[in-house]
Amino acid sequence: MMEKNISTAVIKRLPRYYKTIKELAVANITRVSSAELAGRLSFTASKIRQDLNCFGGFGQQGYGYNVAYLCNELEEILGINKGIPAILIGTGNIGTALINNFDFLYSGFKLIAGFDIRVFNDNINNVPIYNASELERFIEKNKPKMAVLTVPRNQVQKYVKLFIKHEIKGVWNFTNEYIQNPDIAAENVNFSDSLMTLCYNIKEK
Amino acid sequence: MMEKNISTAVIKRLPRYYKTIKELAVANITRVSSAELAGRLSFTASKIRQDLNCFGGFGQQGYGYNVAYLCNELEEILGINKGIPAILIGTGNIGTALINNFDFLYSGFKLIAGFDIRVFNDNINNVPIYNASELERFIEKNKPKMAVLTVPRNQVQKYVKLFIKHEIKGVWNFTNEYIQNPDIAAENVNFSDSLMTLCYNIKEK
Repeated sequence: MMEKNISTAVIKRLPRYYKTIKELAVANITRVSSAELAGRLSFTASKIRQDLNCFGGFGQQGYGYNVAYLCNELEEILGINKGIPAILIGTGNIGTALINNFDFLYSGFKLIAGFDIRVFNDNINNVPIYNASELERFIEKNKPKMAVLTVPRNQVQKYVKLFIKHEIKGVWNFTNEYIQNPDIAAENVNFSDSLMTLCYNIKEK
Repeated sequence: MMEKNISTAVIKRLPRYYKTIKELAVANITRVSSAELAGRLSFTASKIRQDLNCFGGFGQQGYGYNVAYLCNELEEILGINKGIPAILIGTGNIGTALINNFDFLYSGFKLIAGFDIRVFNDNINNVPIYNASELERFIEKNKPKMAVLTVPRNQVQKYVKLFIKHEIKGVWNFTNEYIQNPDIAAENVNFSDSLMTLCYNIKEK
């Protein structure tokens, strides 16, 4: 069913499709047309059909999409139904805010531990927090597949090397250092890039 | 000098150009070639030349780019040299982390106040925090042009309406509600979209 070479733009839209479909599923709605989806999202009905067709298409003309089926398929496609084990490094303000408030499981990951060079609480929101000196042993034993990085930028390369060595497959990067490395998937969440883009768009308005 | 219809992709890359050039300027480096920039960024030299040409081009063949000049020009283009007045609504974990740690001025904004429905500290990191009941009066008087939104998603539409009414030009949106409105520029920072994209990319590796 899966096709290769799906464009990055399509992939970036999948989470929004998933969330909308998930809301419908939770509300016990059983089917939905591409026109109704278009009303809830900011895309046209034809773009929605086109995007979902990249993955084989799940709709039937005159019926629309089966919500429960599409919801499951999108979970499969995104891979968010597995609870991939993840760790977080750097329990400062942002790291702590993520541990306390962010629903990792909803987005496909189970946060199993946090690390910092100084540990003030041995757990935050039921996630155990360890000293960074224990990191490598913990990784060897527990084999997390993703790491959230909320450390100062001068430490980024050191951690990326360590992750690759231990076959961590992805990094959710909140440092201001851009990570682009063929050996690890990276999502760079860069607040200042985002805010500068907003600044430009305000100026152009 | 400015040209219209610059693609979103180019605009998204400008902050990374700016940061790299700014670092060179701070290090008192006076000129740089597109090849050297390519070595510091993950783009090719020809893409860099092409991107900067969208804005008139600043380089000279055989000399490269004048760092101080390019730095100033990028600040102008992005509009980040004005310290646009901004407010923040919602001083929970993420809001407080932003006030405490994020350098708004570097990205073009001056954070002049924070608001919440319950105020525990009347200032955070020297930014005054007011009760949300004072928000509209404050906006009328101080005319901020940007608002950071870190509130529960069911309150988003109410605030967006208020912002548009008072000619706030942009919103930096940390709620999970996507904002797309022709009357206001929005940057949607959506953590779960980002993490689901990472999940997909890990699965495909």
